Amino acid sequence: MKPIQVGLLGLGTVGGGTLTVLRRNAAEIKRRAGCEIRVVMAAVRDLQRAQAHAGDDMQLTDDPFAVVNHPDIDIVVEAMGGESPARALILEAIANGKHVVTANKALIARHGTEIFAAAQQRGVMVAFEAAVGGGIPIIKAIREGLTANRIEWIAGIINGTTNFILTRMRDEGSSFADALKLAQELGYAEADPSFDVEGVDAAHKLTILSAIAFGIPMQFDHAHIEGITRLTQDDVRYAGRLGYRVKLLGITRRTAGGIELRVHPALIPERRLIANVDGSMNAILVKGDAVGVTLHYGAGAGAEPTASSVVADLVDVARMMTSDPHSRVPHLAFQPETLSSEPILPMGEVRTCYYLRMRARDEAGVLADVTRILADLGISIEAMIQQEPASGDPLVDIVMLTHQCSEKHIDAAIDRMEALPSLTGGVMRIRLEHLAG
Amino acid sequence: MKPIQVGLLGLGTVGGGTLTVLRRNAAEIKRRAGCEIRVVMAAVRDLQRAQAHAGDDMQLTDDPFAVVNHPDIDIVVEAMGGESPARALILEAIANGKHVVTANKALIARHGTEIFAAAQQRGVMVAFEAAVGGGIPIIKAIREGLTANRIEWIAGIINGTTNFILTRMRDEGSSFADALKLAQELGYAEADPSFDVEGVDAAHKLTILSAIAFGIPMQFDHAHIEGITRLTQDDVRYAGRLGYRVKLLGITRRTAGGIELRVHPALIPERRLIANVDGSMNAILVKGDAVGVTLHYGAGAGAEPTASSVVADLVDVARMMTSDPHSRVPHLAFQPETLSSEPILPMGEVRTCYYLRMRARDEAGVLADVTRILADLGISIEAMIQQEPASGDPLVDIVMLTHQCSEKHIDAAIDRMEALPSLTGGVMRIRLEHLAG
Repeated sequence: MKPIQVGLLGLGTVGGGTLTVLRRNAAEIKRRAGCEIRVVMAAVRDLQRAQAHAGDDMQLTDDPFAVVNHPDIDIVVEAMGGESPARALILEAIANGKHVVTANKALIARHGTEIFAAAQQRGVMVAFEAAVGGGIPIIKAIREGLTANRIEWIAGIINGTTNFILTRMRDEGSSFADALKLAQELGYAEADPSFDVEGVDAAHKLTILSAIAFGIPMQFDHAHIEGITRLTQDDVRYAGRLGYRVKLLGITRRTAGGIELRVHPALIPERRLIANVDGSMNAILVKGDAVGVTLHYGAGAGAEPTASSVVADLVDVARMMTSDPHSRVPHLAFQPETLSSEPILPMGEVRTCYYLRMRARDEAGVLADVTRILADLGISIEAMIQQEPASGDPLVDIVMLTHQCSEKHIDAAIDRMEALPSLTGGVMRIRLEHLAG
Repeated sequence: MKPIQVGLLGLGTVGGGTLTVLRRNAAEIKRRAGCEIRVVMAAVRDLQRAQAHAGDDMQLTDDPFAVVNHPDIDIVVEAMGGESPARALILEAIANGKHVVTANKALIARHGTEIFAAAQQRGVMVAFEAAVGGGIPIIKAIREGLTANRIEWIAGIINGTTNFILTRMRDEGSSFADALKLAQELGYAEADPSFDVEGVDAAHKLTILSAIAFGIPMQFDHAHIEGITRLTQDDVRYAGRLGYRVKLLGITRRTAGGIELRVHPALIPERRLIANVDGSMNAILVKGDAVGVTLHYGAGAGAEPTASSVVADLVDVARMMTSDPHSRVPHLAFQPETLSSEPILPMGEVRTCYYLRMRARDEAGVLADVTRILADLGISIEAMIQQEPASGDPLVDIVMLTHQCSEKHIDAAIDRMEALPSLTGGVMRIRLEHLAG
């Protein structure tokens, strides 16, 4: 078979890593794919800086449209990130009959429906394994490995930056701010970390997982998104005393009323494997009706782990190029004409358990008031800690774990509690997920 | 697309589970595969008993050759187990131009080379995801999801029966015999458990993993195999005191001298995720040069988890039936003409760390003799426990962990120790694997 000719858009972390891996493992990859996979052209921002990296066998340009319009290129790898001009470039590559591989989660979560429809019509493939979970082949696992199953739920640690921060807060007793600063120094967090710490990056990835698990269109706009910026050292410590770890989870679940789609911090029982996924590592739990729970763990970011998924997509495309387009693995796991219109469940209807922390004046009756509010709303308490006040401190911490109830009831309870004169400050609420299968 | 017609060989645990899952999730599977997957015929041992199970839309026979010779059948699912007549049936199905899906690890590990060559020649697919790790899509992960990587090593808990027994021995303080008895009562172990507890089942699976990871032919005959029958409650307890868990591991690793292929009990640091995989669950660690370490966890056996993989293979075959045979995913991950002749490393050349336990008379000089033997062979000691003898007991337990050394040196050391007059009984040796990536 003749070599597959690849055009790269971007030679940064992901593009550079892809080039490195394709070159280092060229012989092994050719033995697997049955043909050589060769990067023949790359679009970069800074031509001069890229020259050193490139070598003689690769043409450089600062015009990415020159890559997607080049007649010799079979597959375009989009490794620029961002929505513009990535979206226009991918659509033009598709219109030119080229297959596309991308690591761009924001783009797929927001414009996937448009991109896949264009690819479908033109008979080309768009592969995006690297968009979720870095090097973990999780898209492949759900889309091809678990096709026998009715997927019930997925819960994942799918953002390495926040997991690194939470691990530092537990293991070293760091504050959120100190842990974030260290993450930035070590290169785990961007200078502007808001996409990571606010949960937006995780929500992009969760949107993609939800679509391929349940056969629904991308619905990023309906995702409930909370980050980790409000978590304190106290919360991490109280959770530990109660036997839990705090993780930023992306959860999507099929319920009778619709599909849950939510990113937020959550307490997880410490004996679960996923509660012990630390540092910048990622892990995704998938519950299927036949297989039960499977867990998929690995590096969620970084040049070579991400390149591992990009190159796996290249090999997949090379292997599948000769199949009847109708018989290829569908972009969203389900045939496009069978996507379902099941709604995303409003957050108020989601049912889960809760951790509540509040500070109150150390006086009689406070606890009675709080528990009365919960009882009135039908919320029962599973465990409680009342922290002895330091001598002279007139305030105590009260921490409660509730049994399962609906989000709208806990919202109402928190509103009423915050109106109690004996409480100072707000009530901290963290969801608690048993993930028991 | 017209329905895919499947013929089942066997309606026991795996075959029955496959039928159940295909029927229950028929609609969802059709949305994924793009066509219906229908079991039209099944070969069973007891026609009368099977009648109830079958329903009207499926033809039953007690002649499995009638299935593999039936002109309407597209894919044969071999769910009988054992080597005969499974091997002959699969070869005849291939000769008839039918694709084959099998869960038969013994058959693939021992006759895979012959079967894949026949399939290659006839242009049909043989899929075997269910042969390793039950419902975990581990074959797919290695063969398709990690194709960018030079695989460095794989280490897995790939036998649920032994993992259940070892978990009981640690958590409940059971003896091996009691834990095995319970496993049999709960259906986790066969009446004749030797394939499981002697490590043969794990070695079949490891042989398959090694072939697809390194692009080598199946070499079950070169596997080093030790089971868990010699492990005692003492070993599990001492390992715990030293910070380790004992697991039956299958390990295959690329080294300069050849490929390691070995199944044996091993100590694993308790902070590793895989050390916390308990009960009958399976987990496989894969180390690739680009991705780093990934872990794949799930149910390693049982009717529906195994069926999950069988049906995923059916969907894969349905999706790939129209592709040029040369472009399909190769059976052993690498193109057949590129398989490598790298040798399996003799066990004596394997280098790892060791746990040693011995009983000695409580007298001066014993420890000096033992440490002298190790020092003479260049083996250094990392940790030691000398158990205080119970009052009146003239014997003490001595437990040592060594740094890395070669198996032939530890063998020589054990021979010399066992010749010491102050030692009573043999020296218990368990390998210690850090699995640190």
